[in-house]
Amino acid sequence: MDLTEEQLLEAIRRVLSGAGPEVRVGAGDDAAVLAPTAGELVITADALVENVHFRRGPTGARDLGYKAIVVSLSDIAAMGASPRSAVCTLTLSRDVEASWVMELFGGMREACDEYALWLVGGDLSRGGEIAISITVTGEVAPGRAVLRTGARPGDRLVVTGELGGSAAGLRLTRLRKMPTKEQREAILRHMRPTARVGEGGVLARYGATAMIDISDGLSLDLSRLLSASGVAARLELGSVPVANLATLEDALGGGEDYELLATLPDPGTVDAAASELKEALGVSLSEIGVVEEGHGAVSVGDDGTEQPLEPTGWDHFR
Amino acid sequence: MDLTEEQLLEAIRRVLSGAGPEVRVGAGDDAAVLAPTAGELVITADALVENVHFRRGPTGARDLGYKAIVVSLSDIAAMGASPRSAVCTLTLSRDVEASWVMELFGGMREACDEYALWLVGGDLSRGGEIAISITVTGEVAPGRAVLRTGARPGDRLVVTGELGGSAAGLRLTRLRKMPTKEQREAILRHMRPTARVGEGGVLARYGATAMIDISDGLSLDLSRLLSASGVAARLELGSVPVANLATLEDALGGGEDYELLATLPDPGTVDAAASELKEALGVSLSEIGVVEEGHGAVSVGDDGTEQPLEPTGWDHFR
Repeated sequence: MDLTEEQLLEAIRRVLSGAGPEVRVGAGDDAAVLAPTAGELVITADALVENVHFRRGPTGARDLGYKAIVVSLSDIAAMGASPRSAVCTLTLSRDVEASWVMELFGGMREACDEYALWLVGGDLSRGGEIAISITVTGEVAPGRAVLRTGARPGDRLVVTGELGGSAAGLRLTRLRKMPTKEQREAILRHMRPTARVGEGGVLARYGATAMIDISDGLSLDLSRLLSASGVAARLELGSVPVANLATLEDALGGGEDYELLATLPDPGTVDAAASELKEALGVSLSEIGVVEEGHGAVSVGDDGTEQPLEPTGWDHFR
Repeated sequence: MDLTEEQLLEAIRRVLSGAGPEVRVGAGDDAAVLAPTAGELVITADALVENVHFRRGPTGARDLGYKAIVVSLSDIAAMGASPRSAVCTLTLSRDVEASWVMELFGGMREACDEYALWLVGGDLSRGGEIAISITVTGEVAPGRAVLRTGARPGDRLVVTGELGGSAAGLRLTRLRKMPTKEQREAILRHMRPTARVGEGGVLARYGATAMIDISDGLSLDLSRLLSASGVAARLELGSVPVANLATLEDALGGGEDYELLATLPDPGTVDAAASELKEALGVSLSEIGVVEEGHGAVSVGDDGTEQPLEPTGWDHFR
């Protein structure tokens, strides 16, 4: 790295969002300042660490920056909240070029522009490995955040979009030949995931009783939602929307899809929410099961056979 | 580490701040939710990386957690804002014990309790080295944040407390014999710095035109403030408050003191603010120079000799 910290920070400030009416003070001071809102403040943080969450070779800096924002933003979406601001801390190893850092911030800026999010601050440190920690804030009308805890027996389990695409895409990045168009699309689902922000808002408006984003695989995130709500569920395996080139196993345990898993109070609401999502956002909503009293999840196969659904997703400490 | 991520998160949740009236949703959901405020949102993030900002041996986990909060909080103080919430991402290497992590969160909780800050969320990752990234939010009355950019010629330069104590304390941690009482106090200034939150509020109320926290040494942070405001300054070296056991060099370039450097409009205001700080908080305020037109800073020795003040503080990339 041939720049001093001050020079690099100055260069980064130029790609950060400028001060708009909402941003009273942007990057460059001790802290950023944002205009007051009538809503509640929603806040969440996530880190991406080199060789754990990404490898520098296959993942370009711009894609990585974009994805770092989406990963945190997805948690804001899962509350039914609107995104507002992002701050990041970035740890850089000695072998990182300044141009790589600028590309990374370029990707972060790109995602922020796409999701109407202000990137208002950053902090740089040296370290032995690259680590990107992003905090995203959002806003929600008082009392309207959708938690993991509200699912009730009888609610319908729904999921946006398709699952397993990211896992399939990750596998395809290891291909040693030129990918087909279909394969490129799957790779893109892994490299450039979508945060379901608009979808979270629609599901909240239709009275979602609980919601979570699927970051670690359907089976693990479903078990988190059920456990937080103190309920059980029956999952119809044949109804799980499996992405193109993915397997049911990818969908259940692959992770990084960033689709939303929610519970809606009745079939009529599911149909209405599905229509609106399809028309307004072009996104499918699949009913994949039902909430029951008890503990844990049971999967139901196409032939009616039932068995306990083991959470098979990503655990950093296993 | 003998725990799964879920088990460790559950243990951490128990040391995190419980939900009070201000915290609508605490740790454990996709994101935390905080009550609306009438003020502007102030937000800042900082990271502490192993072997860059701390070494695990000399720095106990509890002190480290405490300091991680103070480092970010100090930036909120430097805006004249009130602390509100904190979220953290924590990267852990494989050799870290669960008990170490619990101590770390214990220290974070301790600092949060002391400064009336809600610790509302965390994210855990694996990595090759320990890294702690903390985002702190605060609140300030609309339009009242004190920036780095407002210093004007004629303003008086003031600094809270004493400088160089952290550098002296760091040196003393390397002593191979039992420290004296005086030495222990210096070590504590390094291990358990204070965020000047109340002091920042007082200085803002007395009309501070610019403010910055001294995290990287007086000479470097002064140069940042002057450059942001587009002004110069004369610094009276004999007036710089040097901490016990520290040198003037420690005070100018040592860093990690987390005192506040501010500009006040006139000598009368300096006296009034100093009296209030002394009476209400027991903290000294020293007038150390004056803002002038131009660029850069000049130091004035006790014998009246002047020379350019070179920023000698901490740059992660040099």
